[in-house]
This record gives sequence, structure tokens and C-alpha cells, in this order.
Amino acid sequence: MRTEISTLGEFGLIAHLTKGIKLENESSKYGIGDDAAVLSYPSEKQILVTTDLLMEGVHFDLTYVPLKHLGYKSAVVNFSDIYAMNGTPRQITISLALSKRFCVEDIEEFYAGVRLACQQYHVDIVGGDTSSSLTGLAISITCIGEADKNKVVYRNGAKETDLICVSGDLGAAYMGLQLLEREKTVLKGEKDIQPDFSGKEYLLERQLKPEARKDIIEKLAAANIIPSSMMDISDGLSSELLHICKQSNAGCRIYEEHIPIDYQTAVMAEEFNMNLTTCAMNGGEDYELVFTVSIADYDKVSQIEGIRLIGHITKPELGCALVTRDGQEFELRAQGWNALRKK
Amino acid sequence: MRTEISTLGEFGLIAHLTKGIKLENESSKYGIGDDAAVLSYPSEKQILVTTDLLMEGVHFDLTYVPLKHLGYKSAVVNFSDIYAMNGTPRQITISLALSKRFCVEDIEEFYAGVRLACQQYHVDIVGGDTSSSLTGLAISITCIGEADKNKVVYRNGAKETDLICVSGDLGAAYMGLQLLEREKTVLKGEKDIQPDFSGKEYLLERQLKPEARKDIIEKLAAANIIPSSMMDISDGLSSELLHICKQSNAGCRIYEEHIPIDYQTAVMAEEFNMNLTTCAMNGGEDYELVFTVSIADYDKVSQIEGIRLIGHITKPELGCALVTRDGQEFELRAQGWNALRKK
Repeated sequence: MRTEISTLGEFGLIAHLTKGIKLENESSKYGIGDDAAVLSYPSEKQILVTTDLLMEGVHFDLTYVPLKHLGYKSAVVNFSDIYAMNGTPRQITISLALSKRFCVEDIEEFYAGVRLACQQYHVDIVGGDTSSSLTGLAISITCIGEADKNKVVYRNGAKETDLICVSGDLGAAYMGLQLLEREKTVLKGEKDIQPDFSGKEYLLERQLKPEARKDIIEKLAAANIIPSSMMDISDGLSSELLHICKQSNAGCRIYEEHIPIDYQTAVMAEEFNMNLTTCAMNGGEDYELVFTVSIADYDKVSQIEGIRLIGHITKPELGCALVTRDGQEFELRAQGWNALRKK
Repeated sequence: MRTEISTLGEFGLIAHLTKGIKLENESSKYGIGDDAAVLSYPSEKQILVTTDLLMEGVHFDLTYVPLKHLGYKSAVVNFSDIYAMNGTPRQITISLALSKRFCVEDIEEFYAGVRLACQQYHVDIVGGDTSSSLTGLAISITCIGEADKNKVVYRNGAKETDLICVSGDLGAAYMGLQLLEREKTVLKGEKDIQPDFSGKEYLLERQLKPEARKDIIEKLAAANIIPSSMMDISDGLSSELLHICKQSNAGCRIYEEHIPIDYQTAVMAEEFNMNLTTCAMNGGEDYELVFTVSIADYDKVSQIEGIRLIGHITKPELGCALVTRDGQEFELRAQGWNALRKK
């Protein structure tokens, strides 16, 4: 079934896609349908704003990414940025630019993914825009969130002796991407050969349907911990730690043996003959949180499930380094995902 | 001079472009450099959010649009949406996706335009993102503004007998576009033939460097007028009036003889052998304001320079129509700019 977008037109398409959207949050006063959305936040809250522009062929490959997953992921990666400020996402706007290749059903799929993510994370869709593109799909998402005034966590607050923590495990999304790229030829080719993903489901899920670590932010709050600095891991742990250390005027040591890595990630790295630690440090798209806490919080933080202590903050003169299992030090470098350098 | 973007990389480019950006507004707490911008608004304000995604070849043509003008316009059209809610723009975020064709100097030009617009309108750049695109340039801008809680003006408040007003004049930006399209072959062709724009500067300016009607919002506030409904004219007056009437459950009559049109627009329509009223009603990209006020405000509003009364709101049964000079009624139709239907 293929309904051409031109049969609905811009306003018709927007009306169709946004039908039944309800506003859940107290702060969402008026959503889609006017020149701007109207929000209202109490003055004790600070407002967080993050935005992402995702381009087909650069940020995603529709050969193996289903549109529903793409919608879900596009929303979730923006929520992740709000959590990374110790905040709660409340509203998003979504703009799409579509080439003629796409039909109404495609966009319905994409929106179904966005709406699912919004339901799961209790975020309201308050705006959007749909227009055309000469080639491919462009997605622009802006997410607005809130945090208590004195609880916003920046990148620049890490202090010497602070502990460095990460949530979840690293490198799996990157391995999922490698796997999808390998199977792409199969997916594009003969129909009777099916790509073999058995035993690798976790890697695919991490790549195609990542989650934002709402739970970690809630656990930290419940334990009364305010991190001294925090980021989400989108470009890779190395890259993010360099940002934190640069902005905090600090150095760091992290320990290879403590980097959390899932079993499937390790098996896949072996299969691809890749260095596992490099994948975990530089793979990117983990959407886990890396944060620092005062050593005074050691007892509290070490009791939280799903958080691993991987190192500590040092004086800036010591630089940023990974300490290997055999005690060698390697300077951290941002080899992470960097679309402008790679392409 | 051409510096490849790859020599700076994503983070280098962002640092280069955003150097020296200062935050002017009290509500801008933290700008570029973290996972999200941090804003703080007093609780008596409502927060307005609008967003636009602009694609090369659909929304702009770099054959005749200088990048600095494009930057200026991209920002201003978003400010215009905030004014159209009776608000004041305070912050914007800018994301760009660039193909290899673009160099650092190009993006500097674009940013120079955005920064100029932000200076003129006292808006802070608080976020951005720069990545690559396989083809062309994509621009995503989100603008955040504020309005007093009881002063936000929606599209849905027009009441029977309300007066319909527009600012400035209409159709000039559309005529500027026609002119540029005609001269495009000259611009692309032999160097010694120069396109002839003399006496048409106003049309070009309206197309290439539109302004948002901050002044009108301020004059309305000074005169103690809160419009019952308002929109900015981006798709054309017909289209916007249909939105207002549909959302307000009303009809309207507007009078051809009262539609404000500049002399240059009229000359150009004649030259192109186009119907002048159609151009003014459906041209689009005027970025003027159309709004309705109670007849009780007649005396006040008619004294404001730059505002023209063009008609009135009726019962919904009467539909929406243009009354011509000879008294005929034509039903309004949205023939305006609609990228999805046209392409």
C-alpha cells in the first residue's frame, strides 16, 4: 500500500500524523497548530533545550534501519541529552524533509516510532513541520526538558579525586552497526539468503533501538547524588571524557579492566578481529551516561546497580589516559564518530 | 580562499564559528558547549517554541541567495513566528548539515548573517550542531521566546465583527523571487551581462533580507491592544486567513481595494503579466503580521502607522471571501507556497 504524500499536501499530512496527540505534561500548554508551541514552567525549574539534525546516508542507512526504529531512536537520543544534564525531557518538536521516494505509510511508520518513544518517556510532541527534500530524508528534532535550578549537571564540574562512573556497557551499538554493515550486502541481495543475527540480538537492539538512561538519573536522585559532571556517550567514551576533562580543567585515569563490556560485544569483536577496548572506548552511540561524583559519594554510588566505577579525575598536568591491564598508560584520543572528518 | 571543513573537524568548526558569542538575555543561562542549553524564565512568562527545517533546492536556491542573507533570513523567519504569538524571541539554536561543496568560509558567511540577525533582534545563539550531508545544505533552526501569560495570541480567537488588519505590504517578496528566477540564467551565464535590478531593490530586499515585525508588536503593546488572533504571513494571506477562520470557527470578508501593495510590486506584476491581487494574496514569504482586533479597538488600531484594515470576521456560514473592487465575491483558496504539493 502506497499513498503519495501529494494526495494529502503539507497541512493534510501534518493533520493526519498528529491526529490524537494529547499533551500529558503540566508544562505543555499548547502543542501543534499555531505559529509556536506554548509552554509554562515554574520559576524554580531551569529549562533545557537540545537539538539534532539527522541526515540520510550520514546518520542513518535506510537499507537496514526500519523507519519505526529510526523514529524511536531519533527521539530517544534527544531525551538522552536532557538526562545528561540531570534533567527530565518534557516536549519535542519534529521536522521532516522528505524526497518523493517516501509515501504516507513510510512517515506513519516513522511517527509511530516517535510516538512510542514519547509514550515510554512521557514526553509531549508539541510541534513539527513537514516539507520536501530533493534527495533523501532529513530529520530535525528539538527536545525541551526541565531540571531543578540547583541540580543541573554540566560537563565542567569534575574535580580532582572525583570518581568516574559509567552506566550499562559500551561498544555494543558500534558492534551492531558493524554487523548490519556486513549483512547489508545480504539484505540488499538475493531473497532466499537471510542475514544471520542469532545470538547477536543485543547488539542489534543497542544499535537500532537504544534507550536513554532515565532509570540512572532516577536512581542517582533517589540516592541523593548530584554528579559533579555528566555527559551522555554518543561519540564514544574517549571523546566524552576529553570534553569533561577539558571543560573541567582536569585530567583522568580510567582502567581498562573496569570498562563494562557485554559478552556479545566481545564475541563480535573477536569475530571481526577488532580490538575490543578500542571498540568500547571509541565506538559511540552507546547513549549511556558517563559522570563524575565526589569520593564522599563512593559508598552510595557503588551500591547502585548498573553503574560501574572506571577511574578517577586527576590534576590537568597528568593528561587523560587509559591504564591497560598490564599497567601501561595510553593517552585518550577522540577517534569517535565524527561525521565531518570521516566523510 | 577556501579552507576545507575537514581541516577543523566538527568540534573545531563549532568552536571557530561560535567564538565570541555572548549571552545578552537574562533568561539565557548557559549556551553552546554542553549536552543542552540552559534557560530560566520567570513563572509569569509563557515560553514559545518554533522550529524550521530548510532544505537547499526546496526552500532556497544558492544560485542567487548569498549565504549571509540566507543566515539572516533563516533566523528572522523564526523570530517572526514568535512575534506572531505576541511574544519576544530570546534564544535560537542552529544546526547545519553540509555537503563537501561547502568550505569554512561559506559557513562563516552563513553564521555572520545569523549573528547579525541575532544582534538586531537581541536574540542569543544558545546551541547548534554541525554535521555532514550527502547533497546540499540543510538548516534547522529552533527559536525560543517568551510572552506574558495572559497575552499570548493564538490563531483561534477571532470573533464575529472583529477587524482584520495586516502590517506592511504584500506580494513583494514573491515578486522578488520571480525576478531572481528570471535573472538566474543571466547570473549563471556569461560574466559580462549583469542582471538588471535597478528600481527593483525593494523586491529583492523583501525576498533576500526580510525583517520580522518586532515594531508592530511593540506598537500594539504600547497602544494596549491585544489582538484576538494573529499569524505571520509565510504561505500567503489567503492561506493564513483560512487557518485563522478555520481555527476560530469563523468566516471573513476582505476587500481587494484595501490590500496593501507596494508600487514596485505592482510594476513588476504588470511586467510579468501576472494578476497583482493574486500575487499579494498568495505570494507568501511576506513575514508581515495578519491579526484581528475587536471593533472596540478601531480608533486605537487605525492610528498606528504601518497597519492597514482590510476586512472583518463574519459568521462561519458566510465562508471566507475576497470582495473585489467591483463588488464580486471570490472564495479564498490556499494557493500559497506548499512545498509538498508542488514538488
